[in-house]
Amino acid sequence: MRRLTGALAAAAALLAAAPATAQTRPDSDQPWREFQWLYGSAEGAATSRQAFNALRAFAVIQAERWRMGEPVVQRVLAPGATLDRPAFESCGDKKPAVVFDIDETLLLNTGAEYWAAAKQQSYEQSRAFDKDAWAKWEKDGAKLVDPVPGAVEAVDTLRKADIAVIFNSNRSAASMQETAEALAHAGLGVAEPGKTLFLDSAGDGKKDGRRATIAETWCVVAMAGDQLGDFSDLFNAKENGRLPVVKRRQAMGSPMLARMWGQGWFLLPNPVYGKGAEGDFNEIFPKNRWKPH
Amino acid sequence: MRRLTGALAAAAALLAAAPATAQTRPDSDQPWREFQWLYGSAEGAATSRQAFNALRAFAVIQAERWRMGEPVVQRVLAPGATLDRPAFESCGDKKPAVVFDIDETLLLNTGAEYWAAAKQQSYEQSRAFDKDAWAKWEKDGAKLVDPVPGAVEAVDTLRKADIAVIFNSNRSAASMQETAEALAHAGLGVAEPGKTLFLDSAGDGKKDGRRATIAETWCVVAMAGDQLGDFSDLFNAKENGRLPVVKRRQAMGSPMLARMWGQGWFLLPNPVYGKGAEGDFNEIFPKNRWKPH
Repeated sequence: MRRLTGALAAAAALLAAAPATAQTRPDSDQPWREFQWLYGSAEGAATSRQAFNALRAFAVIQAERWRMGEPVVQRVLAPGATLDRPAFESCGDKKPAVVFDIDETLLLNTGAEYWAAAKQQSYEQSRAFDKDAWAKWEKDGAKLVDPVPGAVEAVDTLRKADIAVIFNSNRSAASMQETAEALAHAGLGVAEPGKTLFLDSAGDGKKDGRRATIAETWCVVAMAGDQLGDFSDLFNAKENGRLPVVKRRQAMGSPMLARMWGQGWFLLPNPVYGKGAEGDFNEIFPKNRWKPH
Repeated sequence: MRRLTGALAAAAALLAAAPATAQTRPDSDQPWREFQWLYGSAEGAATSRQAFNALRAFAVIQAERWRMGEPVVQRVLAPGATLDRPAFESCGDKKPAVVFDIDETLLLNTGAEYWAAAKQQSYEQSRAFDKDAWAKWEKDGAKLVDPVPGAVEAVDTLRKADIAVIFNSNRSAASMQETAEALAHAGLGVAEPGKTLFLDSAGDGKKDGRRATIAETWCVVAMAGDQLGDFSDLFNAKENGRLPVVKRRQAMGSPMLARMWGQGWFLLPNPVYGKGAEGDFNEIFPKNRWKPH
């Protein structure tokens, strides 16, 4: 996903409050741990491959069921569904497709993330989303990206199985051509604006509208993303102006939501940015606090 | 996994080289990003559930195949196999089992990790593995742990399907009783030393010997861990005294290794510690470097 303005505001506030010298690490030759894990480790690569292996097996089986005339349902939530009462419409005779987010789902933005890790020397700077820098990155980063490990093989498998590959990203609609170029550069094939490539023209960071448009044409047998907003905007609902971090994590344990992961909804790991990297100590470690004695 | 002494030495060296004021963050109420993602986020929880959903479906199908008399192979590498030439022995009439790592695979060590994130105020301190503190944690943390999201349901499914649940961890064999207590506290059931619970008595952080012992008795249809050493010690081979970070990640793209993830080998995400959090800028971002202009 593209980082959202809420995170930006929070980070900017934090930055303003912090002493100027805190968190700088001009002396270190090592990126922060989460960058090491996502962009450089075998463990991170294997976790991504695991997600793509599961996705392609699932999608091929669902598409085969559809071709056999068995009932298959959309993995896009039905209109009016809630997270407490998820519902999914029948696909009818619409043809099978898989909908992918782009950034840190199919593409590793190594160029921009190198800069976030290194050139923004402080931790708070690397946390803050620089909206202007990202806009520039969308325009000139097309040849400085890598595929997420396993993405190319998964997309190839889907296309060979006659399953449409659709891209739905919160990159700006103004970067349509450059985004298609980035996907092509990474080996992910052709993305056609308005047909298989859908970007954010409203600037609101929401995806449900575009998901509904896609589901009018296609049987969306699977979706993949690195943020829960890649599955439903309902996951991004705020309470008292904040993301309800604890409640949101607990919601993953509900019978239906717990079941979706790896069975229609496929998550690519991203500890580097986004809504998974929010929350204060009371939210992240609410109990079990310990120290050596 | 338990953190290893190599990482400790590297972190200690880094710590010694860093100015005392660098990286301290006494002013922040937010844990580092990777702690937020793993211990507190919905995205982290969903990634874990996805891995466990894939594992239980895979293991149940493999066990069913075994019961039907179809040939099933061990997911423990055969003696003499290499990562370039992986090989797997037939299970014969051995009964099905799944082998799990414990720390950050089935258990979230929230007590100790809160301390790593908060009380060790600097980033380098939170990176360093404190061997003495961990030894104390093994002894008195049994009631300060949580299950990894999805772990309890997965272990329940396996046991109901008459698949043995075996624990193989690098926790010290001196902590056998406390480790069994921690597993029970988290809802993961009974672990019997020497039968279903295997810990490190040599202190060398290696697991292949115990894996071989387990595979003498059981048909290991799946393994799960947060570190590649949970699948084979071969992944931990050093070159010139260091982990070959780039080569190790690239190895994930080989046809056989790429295929294992989600199909016999199941990775739980852990960007917080271990061999996935190593590497300098040249290893993590070897190319594609960019800055806004």
